[in-house]
Parts: sequence; C-alpha cells; structure tokens
Amino acid sequence: MNNEKITKRDEDFAAWYTDICKSADLVDYSSIKGSMIIRPYGYAIWEEMVNVLDREFKRLGHQNVQMPMFIPESLLNVEKDHVEGFAPEVAWVTHGGNTKLEEKMCVRPTSETLFCDHFKKIVKSYRDLPILYNQWCTIVRWEKTTRPFLRSREILWQEGHTLHATEEEARKETLQMLRVYENFQREYLAMPVIVGKKTDKEKFAGAVETYTIEAMMYDGVALQNGTSHYFGQGFADAFGIKFLNKDNKLETPYQTSWGVTTRMIGGLIMTHSDDLGLVLPPKIAPIKIAIIPIKVTDSVNAEIDKLKDELDQSNITYMVDNSEKSAGYKFAEAEVKGYPIRIEIGPRDLENNQVTLVRRDTLEKIMVSTLEVVDKIKSLLEDIQTNLYNRALKRRDEMIYNLNTYEEFREMSEKTGGFAYVNWCGKAECENKIKDDLGLKSRCIPFENHEPDGKCICCGEDAITKIYFGKQY
Amino acid sequence: MNNEKITKRDEDFAAWYTDICKSADLVDYSSIKGSMIIRPYGYAIWEEMVNVLDREFKRLGHQNVQMPMFIPESLLNVEKDHVEGFAPEVAWVTHGGNTKLEEKMCVRPTSETLFCDHFKKIVKSYRDLPILYNQWCTIVRWEKTTRPFLRSREILWQEGHTLHATEEEARKETLQMLRVYENFQREYLAMPVIVGKKTDKEKFAGAVETYTIEAMMYDGVALQNGTSHYFGQGFADAFGIKFLNKDNKLETPYQTSWGVTTRMIGGLIMTHSDDLGLVLPPKIAPIKIAIIPIKVTDSVNAEIDKLKDELDQSNITYMVDNSEKSAGYKFAEAEVKGYPIRIEIGPRDLENNQVTLVRRDTLEKIMVSTLEVVDKIKSLLEDIQTNLYNRALKRRDEMIYNLNTYEEFREMSEKTGGFAYVNWCGKAECENKIKDDLGLKSRCIPFENHEPDGKCICCGEDAITKIYFGKQY
Repeated sequence: MNNEKITKRDEDFAAWYTDICKSADLVDYSSIKGSMIIRPYGYAIWEEMVNVLDREFKRLGHQNVQMPMFIPESLLNVEKDHVEGFAPEVAWVTHGGNTKLEEKMCVRPTSETLFCDHFKKIVKSYRDLPILYNQWCTIVRWEKTTRPFLRSREILWQEGHTLHATEEEARKETLQMLRVYENFQREYLAMPVIVGKKTDKEKFAGAVETYTIEAMMYDGVALQNGTSHYFGQGFADAFGIKFLNKDNKLETPYQTSWGVTTRMIGGLIMTHSDDLGLVLPPKIAPIKIAIIPIKVTDSVNAEIDKLKDELDQSNITYMVDNSEKSAGYKFAEAEVKGYPIRIEIGPRDLENNQVTLVRRDTLEKIMVSTLEVVDKIKSLLEDIQTNLYNRALKRRDEMIYNLNTYEEFREMSEKTGGFAYVNWCGKAECENKIKDDLGLKSRCIPFENHEPDGKCICCGEDAITKIYFGKQY
Repeated sequence: MNNEKITKRDEDFAAWYTDICKSADLVDYSSIKGSMIIRPYGYAIWEEMVNVLDREFKRLGHQNVQMPMFIPESLLNVEKDHVEGFAPEVAWVTHGGNTKLEEKMCVRPTSETLFCDHFKKIVKSYRDLPILYNQWCTIVRWEKTTRPFLRSREILWQEGHTLHATEEEARKETLQMLRVYENFQREYLAMPVIVGKKTDKEKFAGAVETYTIEAMMYDGVALQNGTSHYFGQGFADAFGIKFLNKDNKLETPYQTSWGVTTRMIGGLIMTHSDDLGLVLPPKIAPIKIAIIPIKVTDSVNAEIDKLKDELDQSNITYMVDNSEKSAGYKFAEAEVKGYPIRIEIGPRDLENNQVTLVRRDTLEKIMVSTLEVVDKIKSLLEDIQTNLYNRALKRRDEMIYNLNTYEEFREMSEKTGGFAYVNWCGKAECENKIKDDLGLKSRCIPFENHEPDGKCICCGEDAITKIYFGKQY
C-alpha cells in the first residue's frame, strides 16, 4: 500500500514531505538535476489554482500577455539592484545551434526588464495608462539545493506587471493584489496567512516596498507564499519610460509587480497533510469524492450510477475506483491522494438504503441514507474546508511566541520552530545580528497589530514596530 | 487611423501580414532578436484556442503534465534520427550563474526525450497503459529568419505524448488526434484543411508516420498547421521502455505525439483578413461585438446599457468604445481589430427604434429593430462563421491545380501559388527533383481521393498515389 512508504511526519518532516509528494503522484524526479516533473495530479491542483486566480485577475481588469523567455545580458544589467540580485542565479544561453551568440542571454528569472523594455515602446500618453498585465510562464533560477515545489530550478508562476500615472494608484494596486493572494489562500487553500511588509533587507531586488504573504508550515517553519512589490519610478527611470500627462508634459510612471508560484502546492501540503498522505481543502481539490465499491454487485453498480448522475448535476468532481484491488487498499489509496470525502458502497449497507461517507480530514465515518448522499456531501465539503482552516490557524497561533528578552529569543530559536513576535528598533544591524546569531530571518512587519509595546529585543533601544522572525523554507 | 498603415494585401502579401499583426495589436517586436511579444489581444486569441482544445483533449481522457524545459545533451542524443533533426537548431545553456555546467543542456525544441525518460520510470505493467499525456508549454528553435506566429525562436504550443500496449491502439490515437485538429480548424477557425500523410522525406525526426493538417493561405502558400506522429517502438526501444503484459512477459509499448502551436494564429490571419485589418471567425474571436455610440446622448447610453445586459445574458462578449475619438475613427479601429459585428448606435436611428449592425466579413450594413438586436446578432454570427469558411474553401479550391505534365507543373510553380495535385511514383528521387527544380515541397498524401489516375508527373513511371505539392511557410 502506498501509504506504508510514508515517513511519519513527527519523526522526519523533510522526508515525510517528499514522501507525500511522491506517494500522492504529484511529482517525479527527472534526469535533469534540480528540475522536477509535475505529474497529472499535481498539475491538476495547479490548474485549479490558475483558474481561480486568472478569473480574479481578469475581473480586476488585468490582461494576459507573453513576453520572451530570454533576457540579453545588457538588458538584465539596466537596473543596478536588480542585476545584482539575480545575476548569480541565472541560466546562461551562449550558443544557438553550433553558433556562439554575440551576446549571451539568460533564461528569465523574472521579467521586469522585459516588461519595461516593452512598456517603453507602447506607453505614450496618460490615455495608455494604467497598463495592467499578467503573464503565466516558467522561470528559471539556478538553485544549488532543490525540493519539490519549494525550491526548484524551474518554477511555474504568474507575474503581474502594472504601470500607473500616479504613485497613489500604483500603491493601491500593490496592496489590492496582495489582498487577492491573501483571500485566495485563506478561502481556497484554507491557509491562515500573515500579511505585511518586508524589511529593507528582505525586499525584492529593485523594489521600493515588498509586501508578503507569510504562512507557517506544520513544523513551524515559514513559507513566503506570494509577494507584491511597489517599484516607485526606479525601473521606469532606468529604462526611460515616460508619458505625456493631461497638460502635455512628460512624466515618469509608477510601477508594480506581484507573483505567486507552484510553491503554493508545497505550502498546501505542509499545512494540512498527515501520516496517511495528502489532505486537500475541498475548494482546491481537483477531485472531491472517491467512490469505492466494497464489492461489485448489481445493486452497488446501480447505486454508483445514480450517484454519478447526481454528482454531475451538482458539478462535484469524483473518481470511481473500479480496479481489482482490495477495498482496504483502495481506502488507503484514496487517503494518500487526499480526496476530501470517500464513499464506501457495499451490498450490506444498501439493503438498509445506506452508504458510508469518510471525511479525509478527521477520518470520521458517517452513515447516510442513499436519498441524502449529495446533500450530506455538500455540507460535509464545507465543514472540511472550515475545519482545515481552523485546525491550521490553531496550530499556527500556538507556535507564535510573544517574546520580550533576547534570552527567550535564543531559547525559542534553539528549541522549536514557529514565529517570534518581537519589538524591533528598525535597524539592519539588529536584523543581521538576529540572523547570524539565531538563524532567524525577519518574516514581515504585519499590517495588523504592529504597534511596539517595549524596547528592541536585540539592542534594547526604542522599538518602532513589532515584527515576526522565523526560520524559512 | 490604424488601417491607413496597412499595406494592400495584393500588393505585398508579406508586408500586409506583418502590418495586420502590428496594427491589430497582436504582437510587438522585442529587443530579443527572433522573439516576439504576444500582446493582450493576440494572447486572448491563443487562450480561446487553448480552452477549446484543452477541453477536447480532456474529454478524450488526456491529462496535462509539466516536464522540465531543459534537455541534457546526452538525453537528446539517445534517439539517433531525432538528435540529427533537432541539434542544429537548439539553444544551449552552458552556465548556471558563474559556474560552467558539467554537461550542456538545450532548451527543449520538443519533449519526446523527456517524456520517454519519465515513461521508462513509471510504466511497469499493462495496467499502467495507455498513458495519455499532454503538455502546454514554450519550446525554442533557433531559427535564422523569423516572422510573427509563423516562424519564431520561441513557440507556444501543446505536445501530446501517449504510450499504448498495442500498435493498433497507438495508430488509432494518432489519427484520432489529427481529427481533433481538423475539426477544430474547420469548425472554430473556419479554415478548410487537407488532411493526410507526410512522405518519408517530410516526416518528423524519429517518426514512423507523420500525419498533417495542410492549409492554404490567401497567397496560395501552404501552412502546415498541426501534425500527429505515430512512433511505433522506435523511441521506446531507444529508451528501454518495457511493460509486463497480461501473460507476465515483457513487451515494448507503442508511442505517439501530436502538436499545434501559435502558428494557428498566423494561419487564421492569412486565411481571412483583408486590407482593412483582421477578420476573425466568431467562434474564435475573444470579443464578438463592438458597440459604438455615434453620439453620446441619454437615449444612446440607455440603449447601450440594455444591450450590454442582453449580451451578458446570452454570454456574447463585447467591447464598448467610449473613447473621445470620432465615430469614423472608431469604425476603422473595430475593423482593424476584426470584431465580427459592430453595432452603431445613434440618436436618429433610436428615434425609429433601430440600430445599425455591420458585418466585418462583408461590411454589409443591416438596420435592425432594438427589440431584435440580440436575436439578429446570434444568427449573424453563425452566418459569418459559415461565410468565412465557404469563402476560404472556394478560394482554396480555385488554387488547387490538377496537373498532368511536368511542363504544366513548371509553369504553375513559376506563375502562381497554390497546390499542385499530381500523380507520384512514391520515390524520393522525384520528390527531391521537384523540390530542387521547381521549389515545391510535398504537402501530403491526402486521406481522401488519393488513387492515382495517371503516371508519375516527374519520371513517367507508374504512380502509386496522388499527392499535393506547394510552396510553404
């Protein structure tokens, strides 16, 4: 049985994670070091994510485009901070066929430079603004160590790139898109997330402000699960993007970018899954229901046919396991795959006009009349979604430590995962010291509850804000 | 006005084509030689294509996956014919960050080798077959000369890769997917296509049989607009893919691959568009209707609001041009963009409870009662779809020449575009001679009407089939 191969989560979290990825058929390793294969079930989860987000982006007026995947070295070099941030981790194309290129090009690690190069050509007047673009594509970052979905040389993602006539509008867009990510992750992924601002040290290369969605995994380690950047006029200045305002004067526009990646699948796994396999929130699960015949009889087949019709009518996705395996094996398979509900249908139960529903989140078994199966499924799917969110929220809150002394801070960093919630003076020296000393990076200055209530936990000077620190993936 | 910039189609077809691509805002050139930017309107057409095809692939049991984008040189080298076909036109990555790679890798020009490498690991028994995979992605081919959508260094496409227990099943899949492309192009793109088999000379590198969809453009030049390959066991043998059959014996599976690309957008343009701009078949047009107020008054605005509601209810996409431009300018814009119908709404007409509909395909103006606008639109959209297909079919058939002598063949090749439909002995020598001598490549041996009715047009020996020849994009 597939789930016998899964390492226990509390014994070795890293091994458990890769076991889940493999056992649930989400990914496979390839012969290409650092690149993974996203298998059909993993890709179906990504497609669910893409569908929801793409609809929301479009509802808010964004349009999809496709930029080149290569960036010539000279183009990457235009914005100074940006090239310093990315040049060490790009893949360089040096030859086309047998011919050496005049200028080497990297495979895009992100596309700010490409969008700017295009914006410069198409933006003439205030009538052309705002430009609200998004791109779904693959990017490449030459990582040394990789893990499925979390850190990979090739990443599937979306990158929004927008250009605005005013700072106010650009700042509003930056925060609007962060909220889109936040709502999506709470509502669909059932992930409680902390929303806030990155410190200067942790900002995106070239950004004025970086905002972030920070999630905490089951092991207490932080996952940055989406970012939204306000660029001000930095890129536009470097690329010479100008527009004629209503008074016919040249102005420099204001810019944003924002992105989420397949990393969200990793976050989903490390938030909800367990020793039996994947656990998927119903709203993002590609298949909501596993229908498993305990024994194949005419009455069982008839009940399955009836159920399929009813589920189709309600637009609830399902799979039927008609393989020759034992019922027990099929149950275990359904658990590994994380289908939110499985329906066990046997001739004995059917004599009493009943079937058994099993919730994946709690493994609770529920007998239900064959007349009420689909109604019960609908309410159960909602219950499971809510329960997963609340369970993750509770666990996360238990692992947020409101600390007052550096000794407590050190102890927490040595003893356990989780987030430290501390007062900070705002100086990079303290942030650096905490990283070097305790191995913890700043996560974010939260939007909510960031008023300081003591002195800086590191230097003892006046604090300007509360801030989260934690280990990160 | 944008369409004043469009070269006349009959004066310079190549210039006309690029003018359409630019004027209709489908693409822009980038700073990266050979790579184009697909702008929102062009990308929206691609999204329409993807949606229809993806739904059909899934209905037929295919699943989407995502393979790595890089192929190490040694992996590309596994299948001999394949590497010879592709190695001269790949982009090579030689460095990751500052470090030279131990083995160079190319950016995938196609992914047979990657799929085979994966299949080898996941296929164990007949129970694992068939494997029906598809991938939407970008591929790279280092072309010397490029044209928007038709020939580009980066190509958006889908590639289906399937593995079967029997030759019969694999051959059936190959033809089934070719028929999917054929039906899609006829029904949605309103393109009359010739379906048939490639000669050995024109086969895909590594295929046993290549089947093709051949379309003829307005200028008589052929566009290969989709291919489906039967691989037999060649790749499986080269990669050592085996499965245990029902008798527990090792067997080698049979394989297919099939693909279409953004080139279909080029085909769409060169089939239907005219001197005024793009012409899009309604079933693939992202925006079906342009609503243009002749003058902004309360009654005009009220009518527009009513119309928008009715179109929303009927799921008909539209745009409203509320810009400050003149009505004449807006009409021309709508023509450049190829919206299938434009609705002109003016206060004078409204006094008689009428609006004007203008068909993009014929430019015919139709007065219609405000009570019947949406009904009329629905029937007009169907008419336009049919008319575009019939118009293209008529033109194509007029440019298919049933030739009997080599002199006629030479004359046709010098005088005009179009397809020559000739008897052929089946020998590569004749095919090569025709190419070297007349500059025409074989298009395909059609499934229908291929029985020879004379001697080979080249050597005069017995013919084995009728075949199409033509110039190609």
